Amino acid sequence: MPGHSHLFVPGPTTLPDRILRAMHRASEDHRSSAFPEFVKPLLTDLARLFRTERGEVALFHASGTGGWEIALTNTLAPGAQLLLPCAGQFAVLWGESARKLGYQVETFDDLAWGEAPPVDRIAGRLAEDSAHVIAAVLVVHNETSTGVTADLARVRAAMNRTGHPALLMIDGVSSIGSLEYRHDDWGVDVAITGSQKGLMLPAGLALLALSQKALARASAGGSPRAYFDLAAMLTANRAGYFPYTPSIPMLYGLRESLDMLLAEGLDAVSQRHRRLADGVRSAVQGWGLSRCCLDDHATSDTVTTILVPGSLDARRVIARAFTRYDLALGGGLGPLAGRAFRIGHLGDLNEGMLLGALALVEMCLIEEGMPLTAGSGVAAAERRWLEVPG
Amino acid sequence: MPGHSHLFVPGPTTLPDRILRAMHRASEDHRSSAFPEFVKPLLTDLARLFRTERGEVALFHASGTGGWEIALTNTLAPGAQLLLPCAGQFAVLWGESARKLGYQVETFDDLAWGEAPPVDRIAGRLAEDSAHVIAAVLVVHNETSTGVTADLARVRAAMNRTGHPALLMIDGVSSIGSLEYRHDDWGVDVAITGSQKGLMLPAGLALLALSQKALARASAGGSPRAYFDLAAMLTANRAGYFPYTPSIPMLYGLRESLDMLLAEGLDAVSQRHRRLADGVRSAVQGWGLSRCCLDDHATSDTVTTILVPGSLDARRVIARAFTRYDLALGGGLGPLAGRAFRIGHLGDLNEGMLLGALALVEMCLIEEGMPLTAGSGVAAAERRWLEVPG
Amino acid sequence: MPGHSHLFVPGPTTLPDRILRAMHRASEDHRSSAFPEFVKPLLTDLARLFRTERGEVALFHASGTGGWEIALTNTLAPGAQLLLPCAGQFAVLWGESARKLGYQVETFDDLAWGEAPPVDRIAGRLAEDSAHVIAAVLVVHNETSTGVTADLARVRAAMNRTGHPALLMIDGVSSIGSLEYRHDDWGVDVAITGSQKGLMLPAGLALLALSQKALARASAGGSPRAYFDLAAMLTANRAGYFPYTPSIPMLYGLRESLDMLLAEGLDAVSQRHRRLADGVRSAVQGWGLSRCCLDDHATSDTVTTILVPGSLDARRVIARAFTRYDLALGGGLGPLAGRAFRIGHLGDLNEGMLLGALALVEMCLIEEGMPLTAGSGVAAAERRWLEVPG
Amino acid sequence: MPGHSHLFVPGPTTLPDRILRAMHRASEDHRSSAFPEFVKPLLTDLARLFRTERGEVALFHASGTGGWEIALTNTLAPGAQLLLPCAGQFAVLWGESARKLGYQVETFDDLAWGEAPPVDRIAGRLAEDSAHVIAAVLVVHNETSTGVTADLARVRAAMNRTGHPALLMIDGVSSIGSLEYRHDDWGVDVAITGSQKGLMLPAGLALLALSQKALARASAGGSPRAYFDLAAMLTANRAGYFPYTPSIPMLYGLRESLDMLLAEGLDAVSQRHRRLADGVRSAVQGWGLSRCCLDDHATSDTVTTILVPGSLDARRVIARAFTRYDLALGGGLGPLAGRAFRIGHLGDLNEGMLLGALALVEMCLIEEGMPLTAGSGVAAAERRWLEVPG
Repeated sequence: MPGHSHLFVPGPTTLPDRILRAMHRASEDHRSSAFPEFVKPLLTDLARLFRTERGEVALFHASGTGGWEIALTNTLAPGAQLLLPCAGQFAVLWGESARKLGYQVETFDDLAWGEAPPVDRIAGRLAEDSAHVIAAVLVVHNETSTGVTADLARVRAAMNRTGHPALLMIDGVSSIGSLEYRHDDWGVDVAITGSQKGLMLPAGLALLALSQKALARASAGGSPRAYFDLAAMLTANRAGYFPYTPSIPMLYGLRESLDMLLAEGLDAVSQRHRRLADGVRSAVQGWGLSRCCLDDHATSDTVTTILVPGSLDARRVIARAFTRYDLALGGGLGPLAGRAFRIGHLGDLNEGMLLGALALVEMCLIEEGMPLTAGSGVAAAERRWLEVPG
Repeated sequence: MPGHSHLFVPGPTTLPDRILRAMHRASEDHRSSAFPEFVKPLLTDLARLFRTERGEVALFHASGTGGWEIALTNTLAPGAQLLLPCAGQFAVLWGESARKLGYQVETFDDLAWGEAPPVDRIAGRLAEDSAHVIAAVLVVHNETSTGVTADLARVRAAMNRTGHPALLMIDGVSSIGSLEYRHDDWGVDVAITGSQKGLMLPAGLALLALSQKALARASAGGSPRAYFDLAAMLTANRAGYFPYTPSIPMLYGLRESLDMLLAEGLDAVSQRHRRLADGVRSAVQGWGLSRCCLDDHATSDTVTTILVPGSLDARRVIARAFTRYDLALGGGLGPLAGRAFRIGHLGDLNEGMLLGALALVEMCLIEEGMPLTAGSGVAAAERRWLEVPG
Repeated sequence: MPGHSHLFVPGPTTLPDRILRAMHRASEDHRSSAFPEFVKPLLTDLARLFRTERGEVALFHASGTGGWEIALTNTLAPGAQLLLPCAGQFAVLWGESARKLGYQVETFDDLAWGEAPPVDRIAGRLAEDSAHVIAAVLVVHNETSTGVTADLARVRAAMNRTGHPALLMIDGVSSIGSLEYRHDDWGVDVAITGSQKGLMLPAGLALLALSQKALARASAGGSPRAYFDLAAMLTANRAGYFPYTPSIPMLYGLRESLDMLLAEGLDAVSQRHRRLADGVRSAVQGWGLSRCCLDDHATSDTVTTILVPGSLDARRVIARAFTRYDLALGGGLGPLAGRAFRIGHLGDLNEGMLLGALALVEMCLIEEGMPLTAGSGVAAAERRWLEVPG
Repeated sequence: MPGHSHLFVPGPTTLPDRILRAMHRASEDHRSSAFPEFVKPLLTDLARLFRTERGEVALFHASGTGGWEIALTNTLAPGAQLLLPCAGQFAVLWGESARKLGYQVETFDDLAWGEAPPVDRIAGRLAEDSAHVIAAVLVVHNETSTGVTADLARVRAAMNRTGHPALLMIDGVSSIGSLEYRHDDWGVDVAITGSQKGLMLPAGLALLALSQKALARASAGGSPRAYFDLAAMLTANRAGYFPYTPSIPMLYGLRESLDMLLAEGLDAVSQRHRRLADGVRSAVQGWGLSRCCLDDHATSDTVTTILVPGSLDARRVIARAFTRYDLALGGGLGPLAGRAFRIGHLGDLNEGMLLGALALVEMCLIEEGMPLTAGSGVAAAERRWLEVPG
């Protein structure tokens, strides 16, 4: 199809030309004497992305879902008990992974999709657990299926009030590098992200930050693991190497990504995401549609899940967008299949790109029979951005 | 700036990823025994682009303006007299080139910018020229400064009616590869294009098609020329080579470009440009602005020149678009400076890209003080495209 | 440093321009309706690489060492007992991985590095194991540390003679895609390779082929696993998808790699590797040095491990090659550190590239004090290739 | 064919990865307000390449042969008389270009190919020309057909001694960016180079440096020209623009090329070329062959023209190298066709690349029947480089 495609799924995100260029590199010897000069500052800057000075970072060749496993097997004894509030698909999947690995997972099954992780219930459950059986609390920082962002600082504060020693592990796959994230300040023990969202890279790297408390548990015990063993990775990393052959293009891509994000400034990055998300939310309002997220304070600045009227099948909107206009939208996951579509608005993005996507979305909604005024969403987004110039 | 830039000048046009990839190639020996296997079909397919079977094509390493000179010096005796209707900047510049080279140029100086080349006056002038002093009629097929397309078939028919032997030379820089162009059917003698517009390549190639009549004049005479000598080029080309080192990336890029255009089909390409241009024209109407083109039948499907109200300086709109939204628009040229801006809509383009650009344009117009309804242009373009699905 | 670098470690290998170009692609939606049209033939052609029609293939985002774990955890019950002859570093490391995961590993500890896996001892050990306690025999097909290739057909035949039901799992990381490999014919149950050797890609994919017998064990049981769970992967793959976001560049790179290998022909590929390896072995002989491989029938066609005289430290040769001539050689691993260097000769390679590397090696040997005739190795390689034209 | 190709023609040269990456860029608006920030320092650094502070530089979109025409038409009156010593193909071709453009060319027709431009005869001829009819002396700095480098400082000194006002124009296509070149110090008036040799770019740019004297002649007169008009180019350049659409990839490639050359240092660059050329010359001696260059002081460090014995057809050697080993060698030009082959050793090159090429050359010579000891050339090159470490 003529022209470039419009990629508005919430990951993988659009690859900036700079990153594609940086990845277009000859292979090289990852055991050479020169390699550590490249690797060491890369890891230092990765720690800046997580905003950790007290913790350590690691990167593994795996998807973000591999990161879930790395977090669990390195820090938890076999069969450990976990608390994981589930109100979205990625929480569900993390829970499934944990069960496959033999852990016991408690999930607050009565949460509605679209709710944020319930801070008080987490605290309440920990307070009950006077035997400290619960080894870790798992929270999805930004639930990509519903467009809901958890308030991690509040979660940690509530945990602290109970005096419970459980680790706080978070899935930051669709937040870190886009939304505000403060590993040390927020007292997170294990944070996981993937390369294909805010980092603007292809999938293939699971990146983690770990607190000293998490690291201590990893050295003392954990569950059986080999490829995902943190100790071997950290030992090699400290010398500037990897325990196995790394992907040269991904490392150079990560170098470029960190250069871009740190040059823009992490605060500026999250403000840009806020601004762009505001435009999308205005458009949704302009269309007269509602968002899945039930609490405006928890609305996500990286992905918006949009509910369609009962008369419409969101899958048809998505299919038309893809085949007719080369626009990729995210589908409704789990119980939202057919009832919602998702717009990812994270990574290397600007107003013009988003306005083009919003215009296409409204054309597709009209073509699928929704009684919508052409231009209503785009106009609302424009007005929003004109009111608050970036 | 985050996100990709929005390039809507009427050339250079957006480079498709496929073409950039094709151009990312190791250098190679252009005198090898294998090279002709690559060059010969390339030239054959280039002839298909011009829709010529009876003529020949040639490509030179120069910009499209170099093509003007190639056309002139190869076919005209020193000091020859030319007829070139001037109602736009590129006609003016071609005339200046011709004068620098020592030719005499007659231009119908009373034409208004925005008029199409006046077929009847051309015919009338030729009819007067019973001594056949006029050696060639020069027509800009698509005047990029005003957004006006000449009717070449009518020009040729009118010339034929006079029985005058003048050559018909046309500048197809912003038309060929985008608009309908039929070298043989329309009886054009020399057609010139550049690589950076409809061909979706970087600048750097001047591509020409020549009728047998033009070729006969080139072998018989012409003016002094060396680098631009057609005879040397055609001799080398016929053997599958070039008289000097060609640009390997540009040739592979051209290969990919022709593959793309011929796979889509030249008719489909020009229909797509018509459809996209219709959307732009609807948006202009939606904004309540007028176009420079004075005759709707001559409106260009590759570039639209938009007049702004006297209260606005178009240069400020363009500057804001560029610095604030990473949107490049074309400026008003010559007498239109400050009074007009131009949107290029040619090459590798689709609705989503154009809708994003139109939305940005309306934001800039509003920010520069024009009393415009946000979304009015985008809505009009959407409605147009919804009415006539592509 | 001027000029391109000379990468002669046994992986990662030189990335062909074609593959780098193929990997330079915009991101795309891996859940689109079009994606299976790309994924399904990719997996079909991957099966052709393994030469399996009866088995199934899978690819995971992990390094080749991750492949070791995939093979084990999917097919073996917790604590299972394994037989893994160790006469080189990669056998040792696979064994360590297995032990970390809780399996019991028997290794024939008296094998000398440079020996091939002892077929008769394997068979003898299985024959003794009348209780069928041994769940799998693990063999490194091509031991990258010593330059020794196992005879898998003979291993399987010997195993068959014992009637023992143990699985045969092989590490083909530095063989598959370069050396002859026949999954079905040789009766291998699980074969593992990585992307960064014969496949000429960056590291990051673990690729496996599994027999029906192995697949049956995977569905029936295995050990706890989540990210590496074969069932989830195969279910998604059969529909043309992945259970998590795949790396778009790696998949397009794999597409190109398979196109290249299958177009050349797998037999031609292994013959080319044989021919190039013959030249390297001639050069080693020309230098008066010996190879680590103790049995000429087991000599590897992808990597040559070269022993240096006691007076020389191989690490200094390697360091000089890297810093002075931009030539990357493999180091001696484990007990061979300082005593040997390795030349990788696999992947996208030809005589000219190898001759350049051999010439640099002899310059470094001389500069490090070895009494060597300049040109002696290169001359021997040339003579070898002149005698047996490719 | 597997492996990368070996490009040893004397241009186009191997494109470094860095340059290919830099050229892989989205198109952009060459009339934007930001463009001059890129163009102005580019031209400043281009002047550093020519080592001119008193002169000006310009770049045109054309091949190096276009540069010949730019030099002539901008500075010479129609029909002007030129002195151009011809002892090689590129001098012959420059002369032909000049004659096509209507100039009169005197060439010292009795020079043998392989001779350097005869300084004393040039001076003698100018001394005779008391009427100052000769408008310019044209010298090919490095004659790519014979492998001979002119001594420009001596030419200028001899010209100065005669007090003759003729301009000194030089063709530096295969020297500038590789060999020492000092525009101001040597008193050159017009120097021409192309992008595809020492600058390590694709063909497509003609780059020139002009003295104030040459610039004065250009403003005062010259011959008819349009595309190649220096005044229009310099006016646009001074503002940071171009008079027509430039090639964005070529400009970014040039930026990278100048960064590479200036970072290495122009002196280091020419010393590297000297060192590498010494190795090639040693190899030729090792093979018992002779070079076309008749004077060792004038031997070229960028290209070596090697004469083969009468029993051999050099074309067969070249054909075999190309079809059998993917090695591109330069052919014998003009009277040297079949009698010589050429090795280009300029641009982005190192010892390992050159040793590989030399080894392939000796294999081809042997295969074509020359009684040569395998390894003799490579050994000689190695010894040379071992004696004089770089």
